[in-house]
Amino acid sequence: MTREKLFVIKIGGNVIDSNTALDLFLNDFSLIKERKILIHGGGKIASKLGEQLGIAANYVNGRRITDEATIDLVTMVYGGLINKQLVAKLQHRECDALGLTGADGNVIAAVKRPIKDIDYGFVGDITPDDVNTSLLASLIDQDVVPVFAPLTHHHGSMLNTNADTIASTLAVALSKIYDVRLLYCFEKKGVLLDVNDDASVITHLPEGEYKKLLTQNVLADGILPKLENAFASIHAGVNEVLIGHADDVLKNIGERTEGTLITK
Amino acid sequence: MTREKLFVIKIGGNVIDSNTALDLFLNDFSLIKERKILIHGGGKIASKLGEQLGIAANYVNGRRITDEATIDLVTMVYGGLINKQLVAKLQHRECDALGLTGADGNVIAAVKRPIKDIDYGFVGDITPDDVNTSLLASLIDQDVVPVFAPLTHHHGSMLNTNADTIASTLAVALSKIYDVRLLYCFEKKGVLLDVNDDASVITHLPEGEYKKLLTQNVLADGILPKLENAFASIHAGVNEVLIGHADDVLKNIGERTEGTLITK
Repeated sequence: MTREKLFVIKIGGNVIDSNTALDLFLNDFSLIKERKILIHGGGKIASKLGEQLGIAANYVNGRRITDEATIDLVTMVYGGLINKQLVAKLQHRECDALGLTGADGNVIAAVKRPIKDIDYGFVGDITPDDVNTSLLASLIDQDVVPVFAPLTHHHGSMLNTNADTIASTLAVALSKIYDVRLLYCFEKKGVLLDVNDDASVITHLPEGEYKKLLTQNVLADGILPKLENAFASIHAGVNEVLIGHADDVLKNIGERTEGTLITK
Repeated sequence: MTREKLFVIKIGGNVIDSNTALDLFLNDFSLIKERKILIHGGGKIASKLGEQLGIAANYVNGRRITDEATIDLVTMVYGGLINKQLVAKLQHRECDALGLTGADGNVIAAVKRPIKDIDYGFVGDITPDDVNTSLLASLIDQDVVPVFAPLTHHHGSMLNTNADTIASTLAVALSKIYDVRLLYCFEKKGVLLDVNDDASVITHLPEGEYKKLLTQNVLADGILPKLENAFASIHAGVNEVLIGHADDVLKNIGERTEGTLITK
């Protein structure tokens, strides 16, 4: 039996913070004919609103803590404002979007991060086993497009969860049902050989090549967690990962696409 | 073919504003074994937050106007904070809640209220024909419990829509598929013969009796729109409407219930 293709696409705050970039991205996204899921990050609105409301960002040993005021803030901004605006804009483009957090339909059952050295507060840790794939597949197979806010839940509380992690976790979980391509849209053209030169995009990065580049120490520190995440996803069932700029990574998605294609 | 029973239950701000009242209500709600939908109102959090953010309530001829700052505010608070907190709390009570606005899955396609004497701003008008019953039924029949924020959408914008109207519109639309009982939970014990006497609850109010009371001018002004709405719903396909206090209207829901039962 041939399996259906599914695109799991993550956009970061840089896309959400620019109306022009967002509109262009949503145009491209709504034109994708295959099954698809969108995961969005936070953007600057939450910090701005937090300042207005006098909610101070709280750090311990350089790590951001999600206290009660902060989880309420991000539940409003990520789960309400950004998520519903994206859904309404996609609906207007005839893309049948439906906004979700991990709490809705228990789609991602997280665990509140255990306290070791630091109490991160209302932060949710997740694994692919925590994903309610049957509800998601029933929506996807009705041509509904789930749009995820970076929020999960545990024991009656909403929790903050990194959007990259939600994207890879959903991609891995859904690879049991679909042929999954995971796409990370970020502010660079792709993985660069020279971080200062946009023309130095590595078009194809198989694992062997990646390991070689690692030993040569040529990759920028900032991209390493994304690449680790990408290869972990591929080893756990995802077909391929594409990393590139939101402006062009979705163009001609069925064929050749801009950015860095990561494969086994 | 016997049709399944569906409870469409609306709670107002007075329940949301009290943690104790809300917890009690959610305990009762999660114990209902039949299919069910929850619609929630706004509560005082939006006004309080609006004040903190300097978003002034805007009135024209005594009517509240939903300007751009206000629709963003209620999208955050109703669609984000309140909706997701309710969902997380219900999930914790093993009730498989899933939060929705009218935009999600285009579940309620509104029209922005046309400008006649007053421009109400971002306000959505809806009819039962605008409800995507097939998506809702597919969720409900998977034992998912939709939890609605009082928001709809049109042309890419979120819109403010009265929660009572969403409840009756969903109830009428879904009465094509289910045997629907619509329940309005509010701050009184039910429809009262004497507005100052909680013991004067009218237990059963068929339409003939209602018309008689109308000519006698004994009903309080405040309850009249709710009753008009209730009888309109019944004429459009809803089996019965129950109006009562959130604390007791859900007790023994299959049998005798507290409050006022409204029938043809």
